[in-house]
Amino acid sequence: MAKKIVVALGGNALQSGKSEATAEAQLAVVKETCERIADISERGYELAVVHGNGPQVGRILLASETAKDVTPAMPFDVCGAMSQGYIGYHLQQALKYALNKRNRNIPVVTVATQMVVEKADPAFQNPTKPIGPFYTEEEAKALQESKGYTMKEDAGRGWRRVVPSPLPRRIVEIDAVKKLWDSTIVITCGGGGIPVLENPDGSLEGTAAVIDKDFAAELLAEQVEADVLMILTEVEKVAINFNKPNQENLSELNLADAARYCEEGQFAPGSMLPKVQAAMKFVRAYPGKRAIITSLDKAIDALEGKTGTVITFA
Amino acid sequence: MAKKIVVALGGNALQSGKSEATAEAQLAVVKETCERIADISERGYELAVVHGNGPQVGRILLASETAKDVTPAMPFDVCGAMSQGYIGYHLQQALKYALNKRNRNIPVVTVATQMVVEKADPAFQNPTKPIGPFYTEEEAKALQESKGYTMKEDAGRGWRRVVPSPLPRRIVEIDAVKKLWDSTIVITCGGGGIPVLENPDGSLEGTAAVIDKDFAAELLAEQVEADVLMILTEVEKVAINFNKPNQENLSELNLADAARYCEEGQFAPGSMLPKVQAAMKFVRAYPGKRAIITSLDKAIDALEGKTGTVITFA
Repeated sequence: MAKKIVVALGGNALQSGKSEATAEAQLAVVKETCERIADISERGYELAVVHGNGPQVGRILLASETAKDVTPAMPFDVCGAMSQGYIGYHLQQALKYALNKRNRNIPVVTVATQMVVEKADPAFQNPTKPIGPFYTEEEAKALQESKGYTMKEDAGRGWRRVVPSPLPRRIVEIDAVKKLWDSTIVITCGGGGIPVLENPDGSLEGTAAVIDKDFAAELLAEQVEADVLMILTEVEKVAINFNKPNQENLSELNLADAARYCEEGQFAPGSMLPKVQAAMKFVRAYPGKRAIITSLDKAIDALEGKTGTVITFA
Repeated sequence: MAKKIVVALGGNALQSGKSEATAEAQLAVVKETCERIADISERGYELAVVHGNGPQVGRILLASETAKDVTPAMPFDVCGAMSQGYIGYHLQQALKYALNKRNRNIPVVTVATQMVVEKADPAFQNPTKPIGPFYTEEEAKALQESKGYTMKEDAGRGWRRVVPSPLPRRIVEIDAVKKLWDSTIVITCGGGGIPVLENPDGSLEGTAAVIDKDFAAELLAEQVEADVLMILTEVEKVAINFNKPNQENLSELNLADAARYCEEGQFAPGSMLPKVQAAMKFVRAYPGKRAIITSLDKAIDALEGKTGTVITFA
């Protein structure tokens, strides 16, 4: 049976730091990314793709807020849904072509994906993720008053809205993802999923939150019982003492060491830390399986055990 | 076996003429719409949902163009993809709840859908659909020059960009829609689909075009061999001599009569005409099947043969 992989794409897979933030420049980056994903498929793996959306949803919100006197601004959950459509469209178009070139006739689709988060999540008590434009102190106070936003001063650059970053709890559209899995490459949980709260009557309701896409990918990998959770980022291996003279790149990392390094603060919050934590969660759920953190370019080598950091149970 | 229906939702199913154009106001309308769609499902029909996106994609483009000095404006195909994410998210959230209330545990998902159009389509020689903001004559000339847009003067209100409205030719993600059909209600071909051209090497490329969602729904109905193509709009029945003293509402309409009425100019272009034409195309492809044009409120009655206009082969 084909091995199953959930691939989580970082920001560098969608947008180059050097290039413009236009859709055209992004599409060029996405095309390169999809060559690498198609390579994975070509090796016979079945896969699903999860992607981040930070810069993209940020710009959608910024455009929406900037134009708010001309047309109503969109709530943040809707901006997230829009980013899934936009990024997913580019990925499915580019990946399908990259597969065709390899004589692999595999459908690729994006499923708009809601992710249930819990109001009781402690993150809701302490919103930390800044979103949208900068405001003056007066504007910020007014928004706090009128819309109930939490506003925070951002390192001397002005005031911004902050939203919570709760853990993903349930992939609403998981049935469809499973149904498609055998035949189709599914792009799902984009941006970590559209954050929704579940009301007592079972209805869902969008909420303003930022979900970590690595944790979302991990949840997906658990649910589809993937063989590999593959988190692709900018570096080839996880390192301790990162950027110090004694930096040490890790080829293997077991749960005990990983937990210790996390505690030591070896991994940057919002960057390597959630990746390591997501990988740990996966191998804790499935001790026999692999979580790999590596760079997009090294994905194949890492799958073959030649590089990357493999997080293992013991 | 359950009968299969493709439901095409008109603008009034997503937004009330009376209400604000906010996402919140739209969601309220969508919730009502989904009660009616859930009624159809409750009668045992299998269905897929196609929706328009005119006002929504218009506002996305408007926000994007308004904010273009702050963050790069999005191409029109990307705006379409964003509208699919946004509208699809609302529909899948609301429809799932409406189904739950009826004890129907049916997954609902939105699939980001590309629609191949042909550069040779005569519509590309004569772009007619205005999109985006109004410009002064000088601005319009500058855009024509710099971006190659076709700009037209719009009834004394200023200049606007116009794009072609080609026929939909191929639903790129049809395999996934078919794969999901048995088990899942799929929202697809939103806004008629994201318009793409097919390059000689097989790659797809977004293009600025407006695809009629009724024609897209018809193509979908053909491809899934639906039993019924159901086009929901604001009126209960198709009429000739519409809004005149001798208005006649039609309960049945065969191909020969329909063709004659079309030729007489009985149906408004961009409004009832494409609906009748899409219905005609469907029954021409499947002479034994039904195309129904009616209002959202009357969908069930129309399915039971009590009202609506049924377009038949003969």
